[in-house]
Amino acid sequence: MNERRIPEVVIRRLPKYLRRLQELEEEGVLRVSSLQLSHQMGLNASQIRQDLNLFGGFGQQGYGYLVTNLKESIADILGLEQGKKMIIIGAGNMGISLASYKGFIKKGFNIVKMFDVNPNIIGKSYRGIEVLAMEKLKDYCMENAIDVGIITTPKEHAQGVADILMEAKVKGIWNFSPADINAKDIIVEDVRLSDSLYVLNYKMNNNYID
Amino acid sequence: MNERRIPEVVIRRLPKYLRRLQELEEEGVLRVSSLQLSHQMGLNASQIRQDLNLFGGFGQQGYGYLVTNLKESIADILGLEQGKKMIIIGAGNMGISLASYKGFIKKGFNIVKMFDVNPNIIGKSYRGIEVLAMEKLKDYCMENAIDVGIITTPKEHAQGVADILMEAKVKGIWNFSPADINAKDIIVEDVRLSDSLYVLNYKMNNNYID
Repeated sequence: MNERRIPEVVIRRLPKYLRRLQELEEEGVLRVSSLQLSHQMGLNASQIRQDLNLFGGFGQQGYGYLVTNLKESIADILGLEQGKKMIIIGAGNMGISLASYKGFIKKGFNIVKMFDVNPNIIGKSYRGIEVLAMEKLKDYCMENAIDVGIITTPKEHAQGVADILMEAKVKGIWNFSPADINAKDIIVEDVRLSDSLYVLNYKMNNNYID
Repeated sequence: MNERRIPEVVIRRLPKYLRRLQELEEEGVLRVSSLQLSHQMGLNASQIRQDLNLFGGFGQQGYGYLVTNLKESIADILGLEQGKKMIIIGAGNMGISLASYKGFIKKGFNIVKMFDVNPNIIGKSYRGIEVLAMEKLKDYCMENAIDVGIITTPKEHAQGVADILMEAKVKGIWNFSPADINAKDIIVEDVRLSDSLYVLNYKMNNNYID
């Protein structure tokens, strides 16, 4: 672990800054102070300044941040619009729903194929994305330098799929299965939908209104 | 905002504690120290003790936590297994995929109906869950004391759906649309899949291996 690297909590705030700055830009706002951002985002102003300073600092004391500049800088830090190639493993409802989401393409994330074990859907296309047989997964990834494998298989198949992705030198796994994936030399980002539901439930039970 | 309430970051860690404790229980572990938990979860031990103390403290100095007790306490705090009633608005692939997820039912979250505007699917059932017409949404929620509305509609319909849910006194919205929902007197939990993908991308680009 690199000690100088950016803390994970800060990285997780970057997409939220990006979203807020996009909205400000759409509203025609040119300049924003950390104090204004803090009110709009429920963070405190010094935390915002600290976060952004980690990446070199974009603001000027008493002047604030230029909305479009800061938005573009954050998009650059996040590495958006670089044209990443993604595949989906598991062409069920979740897989097809992700394949349909236009927001990913806009940011440079292209879903190029789906993979499944079900002979009834192999060869079909959903949203223009073809489903290939699982046996082709490894070769396809290697020949096409796939960046991200999106796992939407049932829990019991997730590790096996992840192993193939690792062998094929895929760089990242976006894991929608509830499985914990043992991985080495690959980045795994888990989408834990249950966690989000439990937080909602806690807030409902405790009348936790913002 | 209530000043004595539990910080949001702590609430968001509770499902992670729960998952780890479940795993320990399955492994037959009876007792765990905050130090052991800290190694397994990438948090520091004093933070774990602080978090759990907010809910009354469950451990004993030099003795640690009883795994099953702590697991059950956290499940109680999160309000699991209370038998909450949920509906899905938008019976597309994402909606059907959520309707299929057995993990929710196990924890007491029951999806009882889906709603859609598409006449071709109204009246059909997916995974045993019937799709009703959108016009019935408000009355159905009021008559059946629905707890959570899961919004999986396209972005442009999300606010309209949320308005109906609020009128019908639904307590929580689990928002899978990319829309920002203006809400009052209702808890909204947003699932921002793009945020997760951007974090994955950042980590891939920066070789951010755990």
